[in-house]
Amino acid sequence: MLRAGVKRVLAYKPNSNTYKALSKCYSTERNIAAKSSSKIVSSNPQLLFPCLDKLEKKNEQLSCSTPSSNNENINTLETGPEPSYSFVQTGFKIFHSKQPIHLDHGGVLPEYEIAYETWGQLNSKRDNLILIHTGLSASSHAKSQPNNTKNGWWEGFIGPGKYLDTNKYFIVCTNVLGGCYGSTGPSSKDPADGKPYATRFPIITVNDMVRAQRELIKNCFNVSKVWATVGASMGGMQSLAYAWEFPDEVEKVVSISGCSRSHPYSIALRHCQRQVLMSDPNWNRGFYYGKVPPHVGMKLAREIATVTYRSGPEWEYRFGRNRADSSRPPALCPDFLVETYLDHAGEKFCLEYDANSLLYVSKAMDLFDLGEQNRARAAHTRASTTTRSETVPPIPYEEKSNSDTLSAEESLNDLRRGMSRIAHKDILVVGVESDILFPVWQQREIADVLKDANKGGDIRYFELGNDVSNYGHDTFLLSLDHIGVPIKDFLEGNSGVKS
Amino acid sequence: MLRAGVKRVLAYKPNSNTYKALSKCYSTERNIAAKSSSKIVSSNPQLLFPCLDKLEKKNEQLSCSTPSSNNENINTLETGPEPSYSFVQTGFKIFHSKQPIHLDHGGVLPEYEIAYETWGQLNSKRDNLILIHTGLSASSHAKSQPNNTKNGWWEGFIGPGKYLDTNKYFIVCTNVLGGCYGSTGPSSKDPADGKPYATRFPIITVNDMVRAQRELIKNCFNVSKVWATVGASMGGMQSLAYAWEFPDEVEKVVSISGCSRSHPYSIALRHCQRQVLMSDPNWNRGFYYGKVPPHVGMKLAREIATVTYRSGPEWEYRFGRNRADSSRPPALCPDFLVETYLDHAGEKFCLEYDANSLLYVSKAMDLFDLGEQNRARAAHTRASTTTRSETVPPIPYEEKSNSDTLSAEESLNDLRRGMSRIAHKDILVVGVESDILFPVWQQREIADVLKDANKGGDIRYFELGNDVSNYGHDTFLLSLDHIGVPIKDFLEGNSGVKS
Repeated sequence: MLRAGVKRVLAYKPNSNTYKALSKCYSTERNIAAKSSSKIVSSNPQLLFPCLDKLEKKNEQLSCSTPSSNNENINTLETGPEPSYSFVQTGFKIFHSKQPIHLDHGGVLPEYEIAYETWGQLNSKRDNLILIHTGLSASSHAKSQPNNTKNGWWEGFIGPGKYLDTNKYFIVCTNVLGGCYGSTGPSSKDPADGKPYATRFPIITVNDMVRAQRELIKNCFNVSKVWATVGASMGGMQSLAYAWEFPDEVEKVVSISGCSRSHPYSIALRHCQRQVLMSDPNWNRGFYYGKVPPHVGMKLAREIATVTYRSGPEWEYRFGRNRADSSRPPALCPDFLVETYLDHAGEKFCLEYDANSLLYVSKAMDLFDLGEQNRARAAHTRASTTTRSETVPPIPYEEKSNSDTLSAEESLNDLRRGMSRIAHKDILVVGVESDILFPVWQQREIADVLKDANKGGDIRYFELGNDVSNYGHDTFLLSLDHIGVPIKDFLEGNSGVKS
Repeated sequence: MLRAGVKRVLAYKPNSNTYKALSKCYSTERNIAAKSSSKIVSSNPQLLFPCLDKLEKKNEQLSCSTPSSNNENINTLETGPEPSYSFVQTGFKIFHSKQPIHLDHGGVLPEYEIAYETWGQLNSKRDNLILIHTGLSASSHAKSQPNNTKNGWWEGFIGPGKYLDTNKYFIVCTNVLGGCYGSTGPSSKDPADGKPYATRFPIITVNDMVRAQRELIKNCFNVSKVWATVGASMGGMQSLAYAWEFPDEVEKVVSISGCSRSHPYSIALRHCQRQVLMSDPNWNRGFYYGKVPPHVGMKLAREIATVTYRSGPEWEYRFGRNRADSSRPPALCPDFLVETYLDHAGEKFCLEYDANSLLYVSKAMDLFDLGEQNRARAAHTRASTTTRSETVPPIPYEEKSNSDTLSAEESLNDLRRGMSRIAHKDILVVGVESDILFPVWQQREIADVLKDANKGGDIRYFELGNDVSNYGHDTFLLSLDHIGVPIKDFLEGNSGVKS
């Protein structure tokens, strides 16, 4: 997205020390562009673009950095008042599977690793394990622990006497397959040639993720049945998927701000993020390792995502129409306070997470569907040994042109059949009214299809109204007390939950 | 966003006719990228990216095109089932002002043109003129007319006996100041040097737009008071702004799916579009005229916009989880039907509208605020002759750090004071429950502050529930009968409007 000339060595002023020091990587294109209009007569002054200057400077700095010095850039990024959901990861353990995992859409990982962290103690009966699942971009570091004392993304939620009580439960959290915080993903080396998979990484699904997690649970902890599987957002998908894949190996399921199948609006929002990222020339079709990463595309993708994570009313109260500096004239670069907030959120994330992981994990979310047809097709594909031809549909846009498209009603019936597989389980579904990424009707849908199946499971639905939380999709990270009470009651078997 | 090497002439196979014919503009970088992984051993096949191939090919074609042949590219773009809201414009008339217009934020246009079209006849009393206002990207072509027989964007809404009845009213529609369909905008030549303004164009506001329209109304039609000012989306802003600027020159006001001040969520959504567009290297800080335009950035910006124009429930019914071709494996390029729809919407728009116009007009929407403080500041700036220094806030993100930030309550009170200026007028506000870009609470806000002022105006509020329209923000283009009835009643003085 920046001018691509940043790697070119261009002439520099021999007398300028500043230029000299940075000359190796400085492009003069920016200066040329500025000069092109500075000398000519103009009815109004040329607008300035400090936001682009900043991105170009960053690009130049990254061009000069060796891979090892990139970490310094990460640490010197601006920080702000937002709760950080992802971390430069350390202190996790690794489960290494020498067995291959065959994937829902025909791919294979000949071997793989899953990063994980734990809190609390596994009891002697091995029946107190709670597996918590992360959202898209989070690591296994849900809470501080001796090997990584930084606060985790659910720091206040987990601990002795807390909503996930480490006095009672043994808590395990993994980095998902496809991620970049220790588990095998696109940035990992393909054992076939020792080079990063990049976009040779196979398409994965949420169900693939939980099947990898289950190998960890069995092999590292020798646990045959987990007490609960708990997660929010994509973690809410994983919670349901784990029960779906292994209904006899889960006692209770908690799915927060998730869904039982991704809906087109959520797919559309993730589509925009992927397309923006893939359009960054530095993305280079996924082969950017050892080069300048697509930090601009990542920043923009994160800005779009951030819009979907919160709610309008929160920003109304928090930012209103206030500008970052109302004494200055308006600008096309970030100007209103809400813009500088988004800019900051994007900037903070753009080097923290691997771009290819974002693409693959985001795609896995789109593909999530516990309907009968989708899961049957996946099982069939995994079982077959057919070599996959990984191409995309070249056909032009045509509405409902396929013979096997489903109407809304057919699709819902398909979901009912698929979900009946877990309708005998105890399942708590939590929804947040102010969530626009996973609107509450999607959580209601989970609860409704489970209840309608009438198979004896304790199906509970708990909704946080706009009067309780206006944090939107991020509520599970911010309104711990509001989501914690019904979850603790459900997990610990108390009655009287308002549902 | 594409590799920037497309203009380079690279070596080609001398024996290949295909290569030979296209060699002038073909980059081999794509082939290099593909080859880099095709020969090595890999656990899974490399993903393909036909969507990027297509963009690169388009870039190459545009590099080869002369400006005049660009029009052919526009005409050969795919077409689809969507109602087109913008057109390659022809058949409009021009109002040319030799007088300068001084702008709200200190800029000036030494002279300017406003493109307009009309339908119906101005009566002898000159009191039947209805001025309709466009949304962000529309032209003056609201309806077919002898000089342009193509359907307009409100074709079914305007005509003899229709909701805007040309038997009774003389309808005028303009292309907004800052646009690219005949009115003066960033693509126009700066009289100071005869070169396109580009980003030397001054920041404009919605109030600036209507002050330019008023010169047209006075000078071309000698009308001292318009019967009504009618518009949706940004047009709904203009409707209110026209009355605000000239309260004695408007009889009735209709504002559909608009607001009285832009709220942070809408600003955030437009911010993302602008940043994505400005990150396209072809944008070149606005100086792309005569070069390859930033078609990729425009496409992506339009895709994001399209997500905000419709509603989740509509897509649920229309696309569901259907894929464009379910026989193929999933892909990171457009794959689900909703993705191919967005891709198509972006593709259709990316060469139809000027990128700089999108930035400036989108920014004008952000700046819209009929609160007292904002309008007083604008009036002061216009009146002063101070030379503006066009810079953006370089300060880092900091929440509510300014001394003159307003709390939500202060801001609402400021709006009440500002809006009291038009509260004696007859004003119809229309909102659509499924709109996420301009949520109904923003239309309710308009009606509430006007009613609360209690100044004798006939203030009506009409809301279309989800049971009536799930077209979201686009409802005004698609549910003509639902929005038409209350508007016709209001304009023609009938009673009994459900409000």
